[in-house]
Amino acid sequence: MKRIYKFGNGQAEGNGQMKDLLGGKGANLAEMDRIGIPVPPGFTITTEVCREYQTEGEEVVRNLLHDEALEGLRFIQKIMDKDFGNVDDPLLLSVRSGAKFSMPGMMDTVLDIGLTDQSVAGLANKSGKAKFAWDAYRRLIQMYGGVVLKIEDEEGENPFEKELEKYRDLKGVKYDKDLTVDDLIELVNLFKLLTKKYAGVEFPQDPKEQVWGAIMAVFASWNTPRAIYYREINHISNDLGTAVSVQAMVFGNMGDHSVSGVAFTRNAATGENDFNGEYLVDAQGEDVVAGIRTPLQITIKGSKQWADFAGIQEEERNRAFPSLEEYMPDQYNQLNEVQMKLESHFKDVQDLEFTIQEEKLWLLQTRTGKRTGEAMVRIAMEMLKEGMIDEKTALMRVEPEKLDELLHPVFDPGVLKMSKPLTVGLPASPGATTGRIVFNADEVENFKSDDEQVILVRIETSADDLRGMNLSDGILTARGGMTSHAAVVARGMGKCCVSGAGVLNISYKEKTMSVNGNTYNEGDWISLDGSTGKIYEGKIPTVQPELGNEFDELMALADNYARMKVRANADTPESARVGIMYGARGIGLCRTEHMFFEENRIMKMRKMIMADAQEGRENALADLLPMQRSDFEGIFEAMNGYPVTIRLLDPPLHEFIPFEEEEQRVMAKEIGMTMEKVKRTAENLKEINPMLGHRGCRLGTTYPEITRMQARAIIEAALNEKAKGISVYPEIMIPLTGTLGEMKGQKEIVVNEAEKVFAERNERIDYLVGTMIEVPRAALIADQIAREADFFSFGTNDLTQMTFGFSRDDAGKFLPEYVMNGILPEDPFQVLDREGVGQLVEMAIEKGRNSKQDIHIGICGEHGGEPSSVEFCHQTGMDYVSCSPFRVPIARVAAAQAVIKETEEHFVDK
Amino acid sequence: MKRIYKFGNGQAEGNGQMKDLLGGKGANLAEMDRIGIPVPPGFTITTEVCREYQTEGEEVVRNLLHDEALEGLRFIQKIMDKDFGNVDDPLLLSVRSGAKFSMPGMMDTVLDIGLTDQSVAGLANKSGKAKFAWDAYRRLIQMYGGVVLKIEDEEGENPFEKELEKYRDLKGVKYDKDLTVDDLIELVNLFKLLTKKYAGVEFPQDPKEQVWGAIMAVFASWNTPRAIYYREINHISNDLGTAVSVQAMVFGNMGDHSVSGVAFTRNAATGENDFNGEYLVDAQGEDVVAGIRTPLQITIKGSKQWADFAGIQEEERNRAFPSLEEYMPDQYNQLNEVQMKLESHFKDVQDLEFTIQEEKLWLLQTRTGKRTGEAMVRIAMEMLKEGMIDEKTALMRVEPEKLDELLHPVFDPGVLKMSKPLTVGLPASPGATTGRIVFNADEVENFKSDDEQVILVRIETSADDLRGMNLSDGILTARGGMTSHAAVVARGMGKCCVSGAGVLNISYKEKTMSVNGNTYNEGDWISLDGSTGKIYEGKIPTVQPELGNEFDELMALADNYARMKVRANADTPESARVGIMYGARGIGLCRTEHMFFEENRIMKMRKMIMADAQEGRENALADLLPMQRSDFEGIFEAMNGYPVTIRLLDPPLHEFIPFEEEEQRVMAKEIGMTMEKVKRTAENLKEINPMLGHRGCRLGTTYPEITRMQARAIIEAALNEKAKGISVYPEIMIPLTGTLGEMKGQKEIVVNEAEKVFAERNERIDYLVGTMIEVPRAALIADQIAREADFFSFGTNDLTQMTFGFSRDDAGKFLPEYVMNGILPEDPFQVLDREGVGQLVEMAIEKGRNSKQDIHIGICGEHGGEPSSVEFCHQTGMDYVSCSPFRVPIARVAAAQAVIKETEEHFVDK
Repeated sequence: MKRIYKFGNGQAEGNGQMKDLLGGKGANLAEMDRIGIPVPPGFTITTEVCREYQTEGEEVVRNLLHDEALEGLRFIQKIMDKDFGNVDDPLLLSVRSGAKFSMPGMMDTVLDIGLTDQSVAGLANKSGKAKFAWDAYRRLIQMYGGVVLKIEDEEGENPFEKELEKYRDLKGVKYDKDLTVDDLIELVNLFKLLTKKYAGVEFPQDPKEQVWGAIMAVFASWNTPRAIYYREINHISNDLGTAVSVQAMVFGNMGDHSVSGVAFTRNAATGENDFNGEYLVDAQGEDVVAGIRTPLQITIKGSKQWADFAGIQEEERNRAFPSLEEYMPDQYNQLNEVQMKLESHFKDVQDLEFTIQEEKLWLLQTRTGKRTGEAMVRIAMEMLKEGMIDEKTALMRVEPEKLDELLHPVFDPGVLKMSKPLTVGLPASPGATTGRIVFNADEVENFKSDDEQVILVRIETSADDLRGMNLSDGILTARGGMTSHAAVVARGMGKCCVSGAGVLNISYKEKTMSVNGNTYNEGDWISLDGSTGKIYEGKIPTVQPELGNEFDELMALADNYARMKVRANADTPESARVGIMYGARGIGLCRTEHMFFEENRIMKMRKMIMADAQEGRENALADLLPMQRSDFEGIFEAMNGYPVTIRLLDPPLHEFIPFEEEEQRVMAKEIGMTMEKVKRTAENLKEINPMLGHRGCRLGTTYPEITRMQARAIIEAALNEKAKGISVYPEIMIPLTGTLGEMKGQKEIVVNEAEKVFAERNERIDYLVGTMIEVPRAALIADQIAREADFFSFGTNDLTQMTFGFSRDDAGKFLPEYVMNGILPEDPFQVLDREGVGQLVEMAIEKGRNSKQDIHIGICGEHGGEPSSVEFCHQTGMDYVSCSPFRVPIARVAAAQAVIKETEEHFVDK
Repeated sequence: MKRIYKFGNGQAEGNGQMKDLLGGKGANLAEMDRIGIPVPPGFTITTEVCREYQTEGEEVVRNLLHDEALEGLRFIQKIMDKDFGNVDDPLLLSVRSGAKFSMPGMMDTVLDIGLTDQSVAGLANKSGKAKFAWDAYRRLIQMYGGVVLKIEDEEGENPFEKELEKYRDLKGVKYDKDLTVDDLIELVNLFKLLTKKYAGVEFPQDPKEQVWGAIMAVFASWNTPRAIYYREINHISNDLGTAVSVQAMVFGNMGDHSVSGVAFTRNAATGENDFNGEYLVDAQGEDVVAGIRTPLQITIKGSKQWADFAGIQEEERNRAFPSLEEYMPDQYNQLNEVQMKLESHFKDVQDLEFTIQEEKLWLLQTRTGKRTGEAMVRIAMEMLKEGMIDEKTALMRVEPEKLDELLHPVFDPGVLKMSKPLTVGLPASPGATTGRIVFNADEVENFKSDDEQVILVRIETSADDLRGMNLSDGILTARGGMTSHAAVVARGMGKCCVSGAGVLNISYKEKTMSVNGNTYNEGDWISLDGSTGKIYEGKIPTVQPELGNEFDELMALADNYARMKVRANADTPESARVGIMYGARGIGLCRTEHMFFEENRIMKMRKMIMADAQEGRENALADLLPMQRSDFEGIFEAMNGYPVTIRLLDPPLHEFIPFEEEEQRVMAKEIGMTMEKVKRTAENLKEINPMLGHRGCRLGTTYPEITRMQARAIIEAALNEKAKGISVYPEIMIPLTGTLGEMKGQKEIVVNEAEKVFAERNERIDYLVGTMIEVPRAALIADQIAREADFFSFGTNDLTQMTFGFSRDDAGKFLPEYVMNGILPEDPFQVLDREGVGQLVEMAIEKGRNSKQDIHIGICGEHGGEPSSVEFCHQTGMDYVSCSPFRVPIARVAAAQAVIKETEEHFVDK
């Protein structure tokens, strides 16, 4: 068995495909070497050896590795023309772990291995840089002590860091670089004493001991509790093991002819095809990103743009801040060739690390470059046009969730950089916004009439706040999760929302909000980022990202591949139009109850609820009929030519009734009823578990007149629109069906009323009657229900609540802990639980189709806009998904990707 | 096709097996005739003709029947030696419907068919009883008008009844029998006018028209909306159809040598093998049961007992109230032979109707006799011993639900007869009790200390009332269903409870209860019947039924046949002992939370809940540990040799915290905390849907120290008992598991703590760790969970709530209507829903056994004591059912019956 794969000088034994055996890092190093990119030579010990280490132990593995390791070392020595352990001019090595997936909790890196009390002098001598040499030795002892010997002090902290800090204070210097050679020599001695004190052993003076120690530490770190735990919750097999790469050190900090840098093959922010990056002269890699010194631009173009932005004249730029293109033109050209080669080889944007040691260029790492949503779209579509990648690859390059960035305003990046968040809540509804604090939903209007931006701040929201929520620019709550009332409603409205910011202390009485010692009053400015959950003090201006041509091209491409259609959840003509703008092919969920909350309607609704008998209810409903009808007309008009699924009244009636005495008094007066009666009705309507109470089709069953009115409003609206030349496809949806009897009964009422309207008008239209599948029992008897239903729409929010027995309003007490501890891989209200809820979905589809082969099936729960859930919907054979209008583009791409993954195995594990 | 089956004179063409074709009544008449019992001759038109009527219509059917009907009529005429339609001595007929199942909404009976204006005189003449003849004619017109012609007046009422009442008033008589012949003649005329007025036709003077009209009315009544509806909700096929029996009339009201009577072959109250019954001389059948005249006893023995009870001397009895045995010894002997023949033929107690017309005995009907629970047991076991029936039949003769009557006190029947219920609530927990009204649970103790009987009367109960409920003798609530807190707790305690008595108006402030205009104060006496739901004013003494030898024999027999074991749900040593007394073979559910509600524990529990950190909780738990341990010790001792399944803490923590300010203040003081903190914690613990909230193993997962304490208490208790020589089999049950992670985590905590205790004690015991299956998701992933669990116990209460999405606390708003309208066949909280919930149960068992073949599986929800649900549990292959101790005998019989039904097809449709 081959245990070690060498690389360097173009002689790599491995390649980029061998990630299982060599880990991600080792495989990429081998690949770079194979295609002629200069990488410091080295060798990678395979993941199989890690498994041997777990079963056989250190001694056996050391023996098994011995010959190949020696050969590898000789290979490195030959290329670098230095010997490991040589005291006059030592070869130094790095040891790094590299599993197939990057993993916190694993030992990462030990640098500068090979230095000893003797060879440190040789290195100082040979390089002529004593400070460089002693600093390297100091680092080695610190890293080795921390990482290999696991040294901690009595308080569980790193004693080296503390000592270093104390020492800097003692010497009155701020940065390590200001320490003298003598200081560093003294620190080395102190560090060696610390090693002895805490590890009980001397720092090893045998370079080979150092390298073996580091290798074995990597293997041992595979099985630390933290690593095991991480694998468990991420479903990574314990058998994978980690590889270890041992590589020659190169130095960017060996004087003016040495630099360290990082670079991107394209612009990671805009996606523009522009090579760009930063570098520092006489510096180590970490200095470039640490921000202690200002790094310089690699290209002249980038350098000039930077100077422009910073207000620096060309003359000064050229002198003090030259680009690498100017400072080291040859090496720059070499680097430029390398980056082009890498991008066309890996066929994606590369994020490079390089070092120039005394004018020689070395590539230390290449990996796929992270990018913004905007860049992601542009790069994918441009690479497609350049012929670098094919359509499927272009589509798969898009992370659907990231499209969200393009669909909502974001904070001005410049101002954002200077702002520190007050606290972080849950990113409940994306987008960024800024406004004045208002605590009472009813007062939003006053602020808005002064044309102010408003952020509604509440402990939690309820149906009473709907109007205020709709008027405000953003919503912030102290309680409630990602699927709380505030979150769900805000997403539906496409409005920025941060929910569950638990540290906020809100007093409605004082009209104050306190957080971490600061108190804010009504009218104070704050800013919310609903995409990150961050809350900022003061005003931060926002910018609206532009949707370029590439976005439209991408969407068209996605639709070419997707099998499922994407619809929008929309309750108003406005949001229906947003859905259409984002490419929705119909409405999958139009909630009729939101219509009842509007100002002049809520009283009529309350009158209906307060009525003692069917007759009173019917009178109140007759008043509501024309309003509902005109709502539906507007929606049908907006969705001309597309189907509109309208759900009959769903929430329990108590949601429409105020529970505060003050409001009850107003209501009693308005509807002309005694306060006692209002109180008693409110009391009677209260439920212990409203989620499982008198709602959905249970209302329509006990009060058939409600269903009758709604069916009439829908059918009349459809006929009216048809007369105007609009193509209408109404789909009437029964909510919360759990028994065949409910479905049969509700359908009968709808059909009878429709026929009545047709007879009155002497005109017909086609329409469907179907049901939500959101109660577990409905999934279990889907075969029966399908005989009565034209379509199924999975309400996965409620289905998740009932299948888990989790109230989404209350699960905040344990669900975050469940996700954190890996009891659940994800919040099942965000990502559909395939094991449990998904099983019911599959069962219902199978049973439904067995009864009625062509039954139309979709999803209208929140999951309909979440990419992994969309994939699952595709796999189960659904016909469509429906989601918030603002997530339609995400769902379209996810639907296309689901098709591609199904047919192209190699995309699945990406 | 043969459409008509004749019977009479031993020449019956049908027999008792032909219920499908001849209906229940027709088949039994044929069977009696076959075995030589004298029945008035007649013929039965088959159910197939009913189907022909539905498709072909009246005319066709009349033609199809014509020849056979004529032949049938001739057959009757020959035997009775009278002619139908003869004006001088007319043969009269009855027409009755008879479907396979008796069915409300069907036309029942028309008697005296064949009388006309002419023949009524003939009958009067021939019989010499003008009043008898005219009264018969009056009845015929009335029945024919109501039943065949469907006559109703303007108010939808029966105009004949009204006329009769008016006429009696006019004549100043109280009873019909006091009317003269002239009165009756006048009434006949009035009735004929009414017929003309409301039906638009004359009362038919053609006897054949009368008989055809009645036959067709029976067929037509098969398809009335009420009958269709009844069949729909009882799952009876519309295709069955009804048969029609046409039979010669015989009369018990033709003078002193004629009698009508009813009889039972054994005593229906006690089960004693004693022929008994009542008769009246010169009377019609309905007079015997109507109670206008006092009926006489059939046997001398019965007559003497009756006289004894009524305080009548033998001399007077013999003179004024002779038995049939004395009055008509020959006919009595004939009747006695008939009853013996019938019982041994039908092999069950028979309920007979007979008529002696001028010394000739006729049997009009025989059917299986209804009986009390006590009689049911005695009769089944005695018939078994007599060799009349076999063991399986004896077991199948027992209606398990009826055993309940034997296990609880009942009201003294004599006193009960004279009491009228105030109102009726739900029969939530069986038994009868009487006591003084107390409204506040805390005050029950004061009354009890005076040794008073107490009935706790509440709007609804909560955990706070537990102590008071336990002390009181009965519980009455105005709200809440069969599975409300009051109902569930009362059943567990074996305490009489009537719940949801909606018309009660309870004022805690005034300490009054009003119902239908009467007001009762604290301390007033009321009486409750938890088996019927009836509530009475005042004191009604109760008697405790005696469990005879037959009961024990029956139970032993049941255990011989049953495959499943029966366990009891018991939380205390006392109820564990009741379980053992009733034959429980272990405890299937011991709820640990009830232990925390006891007086001196609740504060410690609250301290635990109020603690800010794990340490505080652990301290409070350490105080609770010895108490829990001693609870468990008592239970293990009571269940010596049997397994005890102990469920870890299940309810949400807010159930332990008071929400009323007053009580919060007491609590703050007692546990030494600020009121503000108590209020805040209570507020934080509130849940919107507590049923789906932070409870069950979600508590044990976020607060592992609770699980740890409980595991320790169980294991320590078990070791302590073992040391005393008790055989202990603890089974530790994790509640509300929905994910594999919860099960794994909780099991690990339990096992670790157990091992710790074993190490401390240097002693081990065997124990199991299993889980409730009560969340739908647990059923869906039962294969995974089974790998970690030693047993499954189905918590079908919660499983029903979540599968339907019904909160049992709130479903009262629609569930009764659902059952009434046939949307659900039964309340799924009472009878397990096989279609939905049952599907999950079956799935979980299959998946569980696939993973772990020998996993032990049972049920501990309320359904475990409901016979049809027990049958289902058997069918799914469960190992045991567990139920309230008082329902253990019911479950034992149901478990045996399930086995018998499985193997003996003919018992299934009984």
